[in-house]
Amino acid sequence: MTGFRELWDQLAPIGRDPGSGGYLRYAWEPAELACRDWFRAQADARDMPVEEDGNGNLVAWRGAGDGPAVLTGSHFDSVPHGGAYDGPLGIVSAFLALDRLSDKPRKRIGVAAFAEEEGARFGVPCLGSRLLAGVLDPDRAAALTDRGGSTLAEALGRTPTGRTDLLDRVGCFVELHVEQGRALGEAAVGVGSAIWPHGRWRLDFTGEGNHAGTTLMADRHDPMLTFAYTVLAANKEARLSGAHATMGRVAVEPNATNAVPSLVRGWLDARAAQSETLQALVEAIHKRAVERATRDGTAVSLTEESVTPEVAFDGGLVARLARVLEAPVLPTGAGHDAGVLSGYVPTAMLFVRNPTGVSHSPAEQATDADCEAGIDALARVLDELS
Amino acid sequence: MTGFRELWDQLAPIGRDPGSGGYLRYAWEPAELACRDWFRAQADARDMPVEEDGNGNLVAWRGAGDGPAVLTGSHFDSVPHGGAYDGPLGIVSAFLALDRLSDKPRKRIGVAAFAEEEGARFGVPCLGSRLLAGVLDPDRAAALTDRGGSTLAEALGRTPTGRTDLLDRVGCFVELHVEQGRALGEAAVGVGSAIWPHGRWRLDFTGEGNHAGTTLMADRHDPMLTFAYTVLAANKEARLSGAHATMGRVAVEPNATNAVPSLVRGWLDARAAQSETLQALVEAIHKRAVERATRDGTAVSLTEESVTPEVAFDGGLVARLARVLEAPVLPTGAGHDAGVLSGYVPTAMLFVRNPTGVSHSPAEQATDADCEAGIDALARVLDELS
Repeated sequence: MTGFRELWDQLAPIGRDPGSGGYLRYAWEPAELACRDWFRAQADARDMPVEEDGNGNLVAWRGAGDGPAVLTGSHFDSVPHGGAYDGPLGIVSAFLALDRLSDKPRKRIGVAAFAEEEGARFGVPCLGSRLLAGVLDPDRAAALTDRGGSTLAEALGRTPTGRTDLLDRVGCFVELHVEQGRALGEAAVGVGSAIWPHGRWRLDFTGEGNHAGTTLMADRHDPMLTFAYTVLAANKEARLSGAHATMGRVAVEPNATNAVPSLVRGWLDARAAQSETLQALVEAIHKRAVERATRDGTAVSLTEESVTPEVAFDGGLVARLARVLEAPVLPTGAGHDAGVLSGYVPTAMLFVRNPTGVSHSPAEQATDADCEAGIDALARVLDELS
Repeated sequence: MTGFRELWDQLAPIGRDPGSGGYLRYAWEPAELACRDWFRAQADARDMPVEEDGNGNLVAWRGAGDGPAVLTGSHFDSVPHGGAYDGPLGIVSAFLALDRLSDKPRKRIGVAAFAEEEGARFGVPCLGSRLLAGVLDPDRAAALTDRGGSTLAEALGRTPTGRTDLLDRVGCFVELHVEQGRALGEAAVGVGSAIWPHGRWRLDFTGEGNHAGTTLMADRHDPMLTFAYTVLAANKEARLSGAHATMGRVAVEPNATNAVPSLVRGWLDARAAQSETLQALVEAIHKRAVERATRDGTAVSLTEESVTPEVAFDGGLVARLARVLEAPVLPTGAGHDAGVLSGYVPTAMLFVRNPTGVSHSPAEQATDADCEAGIDALARVLDELS
């Protein structure tokens, strides 16, 4: 029986940046396409036909059993310089869990590889699963552009299909994922109960571009100041409300050392246990940004790019998995394709322990022993559900 | 006689970004090379042979007269989305001023186009004039890389020559430049007296890359916070000391919306009337950055990229030009090739009024009438000096 390390080592070099040790696997770019080739080879080796849903998502099917299918899987794409486990662990574990199932008659089981879960290329997280679920308009998605100006339609080679009958053939979905904090503690595997409501907002700070050497401090309209104040305000407000706020992405024009910027664009990632807390947090940050803009002689505008309400996974399914695995149950602050699909099919997640607690970084970790435990747990879950 | 507008309209479309209305003319990239072609055509039309000094600087020579030559000129390259006048006005005015000189016997007059004055491509401002003056090591310069990874040697097609005998053949240098503030007031043209000491420092803020959704606020080591605090501290310290400080350029890793950054790199541009003030300013900013880093669990390192001490232009030359032109005398906070060359030949500058006072931005302005006044002033200066 193939072990975790053997399959894992096949994927490890694909898209790895030797400098950072992190991964650059962007949807439909060469490294991610190489992962898809690997997926098709794994499916072939197991005689599993691969279905492509017209949205860039792949599903490898095992069996032709009765009743609605059991779906598992995750995604290949990474954030810039992301870790190895976020996404691929769920796909590798799915194939290996299938290898551990007996040959008794079962429901059909699908292994999915969803497209652009991180939103690192086209800016919309869970792009593939949103299209599949019909919550993202295919024409709007087709026109999304990456930082190089290519559209999603160009990357995909077509306008996405949008909602298909694939989900109608699925009875439940279980996504296995590396933990993204240290909440698991002593347990190697846990069951996800919910995803915090979360979203992304773009803040455009506009001022007056000018010469850094000759413009009097009093004459400036420097949007970098307003941005900087807002970064600190977002941190403070999030701490006050027990929520999470991050401004980790910024784009500056002209971004020259000797120029006062004309535009600073900052993105806010905010998450909270309740939707009301999240809304109040974003409003508080925006209010403080506007106040500071008045002082700086700049302007700020807030654009909501995506908001995902709270997702509570299927209560019955979560309880069943926790009972079968005797595993702890925990919520997460991270969005997942499972969060999107949970609106359409009963859904749950399994988390595999991450000793560093670090995520979206090369320091993200999982031991081989914990990954094997995750595969065993997923095999038991698939056995139970199929 | 060719007027200002005719020549100006020839240059206007080259490298202009239709979106911002600003210019993208980077040294040795296609737009700047097109400006150089224009320069050679203008020289040809006036029977002026063009000398290339092996450092990317061009000089078109008029006459073969006795004694050390009179040099004028400026640069073509721009900051990203810079204005039209910063640089090119000095070159266009030089050709047109020559057209207005009588044919009487004179010293030789050279019109220079210096390479990479803004430092927007290879990070070192006044690159061409520094090489020509021998204050920048040619081998070090050859290895400088642009953001795409190309070296200066590749861009130039050779290792720079460094110091040549060109400056030995020059008796004085006068650079005409658009004003970069509003100090000229009622006068269309002024004479530059000095350049503030100024420099560029890079601040590397390092923390721990992590997931924006799952990492507790208390567990973060977010270098964006330290950067943001430092931006505000730099502004405050500069105001307190009557100096200028700007942090207008930033680079973030991984620069993803849903990731706490691992690295934020910010550049500080600082200038002051005295070197002591400048040094104290940078020290104060660094101290506050280090203090904040301790709070944030991050680290900060400061690297001096370039520092230019105070430049006082040649007192006799400045007084002579002010007398000939009956023009006001004023200092500037901006670096110029004139500042570099003033250490080697008697140097002065002429400033042409900028009604917006805005610089390094598409909003930079000069009226045609003021540009004509600048050309007349430069013609009188060249007449006086040759």
